[in-house]
Amino acid sequence: MSAASQARRRRGRGDLEIAAFERGHHVSYSACGIPFLVGGMVDDVDVLVARMPQVFRDDHAIDVHLSHEVSAIDLDRRQLTVWDAAAGAERREGFDQLVVATGAVPVRPPLPGADGRGIHGVQVLDDGVRLRDLLLAERPARAVVVGGGYIGLEMAEAFVLRGVEVSVVERGPHPMGTLDPDMGALVADALRGLGIAVFEREAVTGFETSDGRVTAVVTDARTLPTDMVILGLGVRPNVALAAGAGIAVGPSGGIAVDQCMRTRSDGVWAAGDCVESFHRVSRQPVVIALGTHANKQGRVAGINIGGGYATFPGVVGTAATKVCDYEVARTGLNEAQATAAGFRHVSAVVDSTTRAGYYPGSNPIKVKLIAERRSGRLLGGQIIGREGAGKRIDVIATALWNEMTVFDMLNLDLSYAPPFSGVWDPLLVAARAAIRAGR
Amino acid sequence: MSAASQARRRRGRGDLEIAAFERGHHVSYSACGIPFLVGGMVDDVDVLVARMPQVFRDDHAIDVHLSHEVSAIDLDRRQLTVWDAAAGAERREGFDQLVVATGAVPVRPPLPGADGRGIHGVQVLDDGVRLRDLLLAERPARAVVVGGGYIGLEMAEAFVLRGVEVSVVERGPHPMGTLDPDMGALVADALRGLGIAVFEREAVTGFETSDGRVTAVVTDARTLPTDMVILGLGVRPNVALAAGAGIAVGPSGGIAVDQCMRTRSDGVWAAGDCVESFHRVSRQPVVIALGTHANKQGRVAGINIGGGYATFPGVVGTAATKVCDYEVARTGLNEAQATAAGFRHVSAVVDSTTRAGYYPGSNPIKVKLIAERRSGRLLGGQIIGREGAGKRIDVIATALWNEMTVFDMLNLDLSYAPPFSGVWDPLLVAARAAIRAGR
Repeated sequence: MSAASQARRRRGRGDLEIAAFERGHHVSYSACGIPFLVGGMVDDVDVLVARMPQVFRDDHAIDVHLSHEVSAIDLDRRQLTVWDAAAGAERREGFDQLVVATGAVPVRPPLPGADGRGIHGVQVLDDGVRLRDLLLAERPARAVVVGGGYIGLEMAEAFVLRGVEVSVVERGPHPMGTLDPDMGALVADALRGLGIAVFEREAVTGFETSDGRVTAVVTDARTLPTDMVILGLGVRPNVALAAGAGIAVGPSGGIAVDQCMRTRSDGVWAAGDCVESFHRVSRQPVVIALGTHANKQGRVAGINIGGGYATFPGVVGTAATKVCDYEVARTGLNEAQATAAGFRHVSAVVDSTTRAGYYPGSNPIKVKLIAERRSGRLLGGQIIGREGAGKRIDVIATALWNEMTVFDMLNLDLSYAPPFSGVWDPLLVAARAAIRAGR
Repeated sequence: MSAASQARRRRGRGDLEIAAFERGHHVSYSACGIPFLVGGMVDDVDVLVARMPQVFRDDHAIDVHLSHEVSAIDLDRRQLTVWDAAAGAERREGFDQLVVATGAVPVRPPLPGADGRGIHGVQVLDDGVRLRDLLLAERPARAVVVGGGYIGLEMAEAFVLRGVEVSVVERGPHPMGTLDPDMGALVADALRGLGIAVFEREAVTGFETSDGRVTAVVTDARTLPTDMVILGLGVRPNVALAAGAGIAVGPSGGIAVDQCMRTRSDGVWAAGDCVESFHRVSRQPVVIALGTHANKQGRVAGINIGGGYATFPGVVGTAATKVCDYEVARTGLNEAQATAAGFRHVSAVVDSTTRAGYYPGSNPIKVKLIAERRSGRLLGGQIIGREGAGKRIDVIATALWNEMTVFDMLNLDLSYAPPFSGVWDPLLVAARAAIRAGR
């Protein structure tokens, strides 16, 4: 819808017809808000919808077709095959320019019992509404979240808020797999402190059911009785439709696009969770499913289709989440990623405070920086702390964007006043420690 | 003390003798914490002291001489004239290398009645303690703060917290003179919303006293009866001692130093509020009295004196403050400064939220960006908002440091999750608006 809106801004309705086909019942909503709907921090599902379909139709002359699934793309004939669920009929739609924005699909391993009732994914808004209603109706006592990534942890928080006893099962060595083990271990500690049971290095092998309803999660180490299961195993780009039409998919598994969001097929663009992005630090293509990238990419595609010029010059891998009082954020490469990308590196972890130590409400913050050996070039950063900690990752992300060294970072003119930091901002303290680590 | 500590890290006590002379009774304390001591947010004065003199003596072999005032520097003889207040005696102290860290002096205009009791500056820790004790003992009903800068507003907050009716008198068109008028007006509105009376474009012409005690502040527009007055008229570099010795003072009024914090006199270094700094956007020397710069500069001087190498490559003019619930921050050049520096510029102001609009605790945030015409180079930024707004200025400061354009800023990979921002971070929304303003 970002692409459609931007194209419309540049070309009037007499000049360009725009149609959008959506398989589900909503467009332009915040999928990221689903855990907060489930947890009851957001009461009204409508606030998660940025714009109603009617607004696109009336104000932007974009024909939004809900419950319409595109099943095939014919690039030679410039035609889509569309299944209209309401009419129960298939039809063809022609196009001159096409934007593929098919998003991502949740990873759902084919485990025994995985189709049992009470096992839920949380991908689209309808999933969130259904889950919230179930929680309120069934009042489960126990839940298991499979996967300790962002969504998994946000869902664990939702259960805590609903008074449900919750366990997180993570196959890797720690939750938040994009953190280094030392920082990930702190997240696990924090989760346990919130009363969440965390089982690490455990793979789910199946589900026990009774009358088709899940009763336990079985891992390679234990059986966890439960009333409800959330699958938070991450997503992969949904490229089946594009690949079926011969649109090139890149090495990371996402649709290959250039900086203008052009695919390698003439007149075909792609944006959002289905594409791969250029990682500005590793210089490799990566797939990162995140609303902020999707919005920017959609905007870029739409501007270019509309005859303007815009580029999406890549990502540095920034992400943040909050679980109850804890804020966790990361950007750039972690140590394993830095090694994989061929960087020799040093790292430093420092403890500081979000305000001057003497100022009321000062919270602990732990900052890790990873820098290239010798050059001191910043490669990545990770932050764990309470209120006021997480968003500071943006300074590290901006430093990474500009390929700053930790030497130069130490000189940054970051704001100082006792309500905001000590006289040495935590990020500067971390830069100083990284410089020392490199000696 | 930063310079002394850093020099000591590199050179042992057998190799380098280090002495420090301090006129007052404290070293190494947070002057920025004084308003919070006065306001009762900080109870114990000791928490404002980072390190006690004894620690410097015992752990770092730095001879700290309190109540010792250096009255003259003889560069030819490499000698200081030192007044030892306790002994009531003057003596000479030799040096090979000298660091001038004389700080700043408050601006105190010679107004009628200005020496009345009840009229206070807040510069050194002793001032803060005295004022706090007076407030508790005398329980004044009314106070007037002269000057609407950072310290003035923080002192106004302190009075609000102590239940004292407070007025702020500001000679300029709005409080926080380093903001543009449109943003400054919002600060004035916020202050009034907190019950603080704000009188703008009013110059203080004198003070009424009774029995030597202040009873009113007289401006060119009114007489404000009061029990207590705070002078918050800013500071200027304290360069008398250095200038008297022939150490060069720059055009901004601060001691001229190079990137290594060397003055133009051999073997003499300077750091802190008494020096001028290079402004990386205007490319002019400026005096900015701020603890974070002072600490960095002292560190750089000490490393270089110790035989290492470090530079202080300048500032971008970042500053932040908090008054009750309001956070105010700025960096770079404001519109008037941009014009004065010869930049043609555009600006944009946007309203956004500190979290996703639907997330609990989402606060309004207003962001202004100033960019060079045509090139789009970022020149400055200003932020006003509530909890979670102010510290975001650091991203703008980092972007300025790297001479980013607003076009590139729009692409920044800033963290996104509903507890931290909408899918378009407020700074990205501002960058988008600045791009539009430049068309």
